[in-house]
Amino acid sequence: MTSAALARPLTNKLRDDLRARFGERFSTAAAVREHHGKDASHHHLAPPEAVVYVRTTDEVADVVHLCAAAKVPVVPFGTGTGLEGGSAAVQGGVCIDLSQMTRILRVSADDLDCTVEAGVTRKQLNQHLRDTGLFFPVDPGADASLGGMAATRASGTNAVRYGTMRENVLSLTVVLADGRIIRTAHRARKSAAGYDLTRLFVGSEGTLGIITEIGLRLYPIPEAIRAAVCAFPSIDAAVAIVVATIQAGVPVARIELLDKVGMEAVNRYAKLDYAVAPTLFFEFHGSTDGVAEQVEIVAALAQENRGGEFRWAESIEARSKLWQARHDAYFAMLALRPGAVVWSTDVCVPISRLPQCIAETTADIEASGLLAPIVGHVGDGNFHLGFVLDPNRSAEFEEAQRVNARMVARALAMDGTCTGEHGIGQGKTEFLIAEHGEAVAVMRAVKRALDPDNIMNPGKILRMN
Amino acid sequence: MTSAALARPLTNKLRDDLRARFGERFSTAAAVREHHGKDASHHHLAPPEAVVYVRTTDEVADVVHLCAAAKVPVVPFGTGTGLEGGSAAVQGGVCIDLSQMTRILRVSADDLDCTVEAGVTRKQLNQHLRDTGLFFPVDPGADASLGGMAATRASGTNAVRYGTMRENVLSLTVVLADGRIIRTAHRARKSAAGYDLTRLFVGSEGTLGIITEIGLRLYPIPEAIRAAVCAFPSIDAAVAIVVATIQAGVPVARIELLDKVGMEAVNRYAKLDYAVAPTLFFEFHGSTDGVAEQVEIVAALAQENRGGEFRWAESIEARSKLWQARHDAYFAMLALRPGAVVWSTDVCVPISRLPQCIAETTADIEASGLLAPIVGHVGDGNFHLGFVLDPNRSAEFEEAQRVNARMVARALAMDGTCTGEHGIGQGKTEFLIAEHGEAVAVMRAVKRALDPDNIMNPGKILRMN
Repeated sequence: MTSAALARPLTNKLRDDLRARFGERFSTAAAVREHHGKDASHHHLAPPEAVVYVRTTDEVADVVHLCAAAKVPVVPFGTGTGLEGGSAAVQGGVCIDLSQMTRILRVSADDLDCTVEAGVTRKQLNQHLRDTGLFFPVDPGADASLGGMAATRASGTNAVRYGTMRENVLSLTVVLADGRIIRTAHRARKSAAGYDLTRLFVGSEGTLGIITEIGLRLYPIPEAIRAAVCAFPSIDAAVAIVVATIQAGVPVARIELLDKVGMEAVNRYAKLDYAVAPTLFFEFHGSTDGVAEQVEIVAALAQENRGGEFRWAESIEARSKLWQARHDAYFAMLALRPGAVVWSTDVCVPISRLPQCIAETTADIEASGLLAPIVGHVGDGNFHLGFVLDPNRSAEFEEAQRVNARMVARALAMDGTCTGEHGIGQGKTEFLIAEHGEAVAVMRAVKRALDPDNIMNPGKILRMN
Repeated sequence: MTSAALARPLTNKLRDDLRARFGERFSTAAAVREHHGKDASHHHLAPPEAVVYVRTTDEVADVVHLCAAAKVPVVPFGTGTGLEGGSAAVQGGVCIDLSQMTRILRVSADDLDCTVEAGVTRKQLNQHLRDTGLFFPVDPGADASLGGMAATRASGTNAVRYGTMRENVLSLTVVLADGRIIRTAHRARKSAAGYDLTRLFVGSEGTLGIITEIGLRLYPIPEAIRAAVCAFPSIDAAVAIVVATIQAGVPVARIELLDKVGMEAVNRYAKLDYAVAPTLFFEFHGSTDGVAEQVEIVAALAQENRGGEFRWAESIEARSKLWQARHDAYFAMLALRPGAVVWSTDVCVPISRLPQCIAETTADIEASGLLAPIVGHVGDGNFHLGFVLDPNRSAEFEEAQRVNARMVARALAMDGTCTGEHGIGQGKTEFLIAEHGEAVAVMRAVKRALDPDNIMNPGKILRMN
């Protein structure tokens, strides 16, 4: 990679300064570096030159300040569950591991919000909230850190009802490229005061600053929750009901698609006995009567579209099992082929274009001969392919690359986006340009303004060289 | 104003070029310039040196391109209904009047979205949507242009349910400071592709670029809508029920407060006979059963808080009249005192702090001797003061300034914002600094990156000199 040549290597002075400041929480051990050089994606290992385990915003500022003086890259790391190689140190430098910043700083049941440190995971937060009657909805498959989720503008199964991190982050504490610390907003639910720095940093993947604290919206746990699965004779029939549900304005909390291959994988992995057919996973939230009403509308729509019977998960345990099956899709795919790796990619299109986009993509996968189940947060027009690949067969990767490029081109031609929720990372920088054209120049200008030496997670989102 | 000295005056060449390009749609007539030098606020008249009536994005780009070459300011103008002097030409330059850009370019009932030109007003759009079963919810009091609403991050009565322009703008076409045209996003409902330029331009008040087209979310008109007013013995009692409603998670569509003075003004102006007491205006959206359920919960809460009976507006006409009364509050205030002007200001705080913030502000107004009704989108924690002032008495303005400054300081101390929806404009630049501190430096850096010569609506939001 030519850009790597431009990065400044870790100097002895910087190494000494960081070790003096952080002691055992500074490491250059190969195992530690390798652990931080990869995420859950297919991208190559790119270890940082050193790792610092930080515990406070001030410590992050100290690391950045020292690195900035030496013009050495800093790369933030949360749980390493990213899917586009965003936390790999492709230009070397110092990895800032935020996983020890796990304090929940404040929960306000009255204001339905909280503030957490960046290393708090979504499950940790919901566990903590258990007795308050509140929950935080955004749920990417992995138990990701909330800092990482904010940085990648993550979403998940219930974004169709509750929004993504874009809608659910109220404020951020951010360490800038020169070590300054800012807070992007106060706690008011809305504000017309100046530029929306919160939304600028949400989704910036560590390239503009490092998120250390996050203010989040919380929601009352609904009075009633019902979940069900429903099989369909074809993927077209399943997607048709998704479109009809959204267009009818039903405030469905989750509406997820797994194709036939995906269902087979999930059944096998979790020892379940769902029909091996294109399947929708539904969840309805509301009052008891409100949920009954939603169920009635959607069940009628499903019948019109030749859906099977709804199979209900009535107890909390049954519901957890149902959603665990959905969330385990990634591991279920991995298990389909021993020794395989999964390359997960996603696009998002306007809902009216979803049937065609999925149909054409399905045909393309079949023609390619690859194993690549489709799963999707289809209520948002968002779906994923999981290429299940043999790591030793480069031809498979090349074929996956072509199928992926065609899927992105298809989504863009439908006025969609090259990624609904995984981010750009290292994997989609060219697609970003295809999608945004001249607007990428604006992104570059913002990047240069906030990080003139390009030390903040360089090589991600934008190629600056 | 010292900064005015830094602005470049309109050159003869630029004047000739613009006249050659736009003919009669270019004007330097005093009446035209004065009309464009003021909005609906108390801020002083500051006419531009010329006005161009544009009809297309390309025409906007042409004007900006010519002005950029001469380093002359450009100031966008929609309907002139802003409340912080945002469209006044405080550093001279050329006003770009977008009010002739009134085409609704596309409505997709299937995707629940549309694209409009910047001069389309919210009422024009809803009129156009009448037969589709869809509506656009964001409703500042005035019939503002959607471009202006995006530029100021406007909201209104039903933001508590549907969000503000921040949540409802899907994409923007923007003319940058050098005349380049960008589109900030495709039509997918969510995207993790790069920096959130849409949200960066929403609320930037013309200081980073000129918004010429807007992609917007639309919503199905609910099956059932019910509206009611309910009087309370005290403002505390009214606010208590607002807090309880929000905390109970009731998805109320509108929950508006008018204080006693405001109700008196509205009664008198619209010849109504509401009780002269602190009053909440409610609207409930949903299915028939869902609305009945919401009404039951809120009515029970109201009774617990010594509210009066709900007075229902059952017909569409009665409902329109009820909301017209609320939307006319500004004119009703004006009518309270012949020859007066209204200085409208707003803050927004976390909902738990709203009772105290309103109580202290009410006491401060009473002590000041000023006439200043409180109206508020209280479900968001957002409320407004309308100082009704004699334009010839500077002592009144000075007193209003002090009351306003104390209200803003109070809101900031409660972790709120200096403006929930009016924007910074010229009026709140100092409060922006008080609110955001070091983060204002980031805003300045972004501004410099995108508008190095400070020609885009200079003197608004940020003082760059």
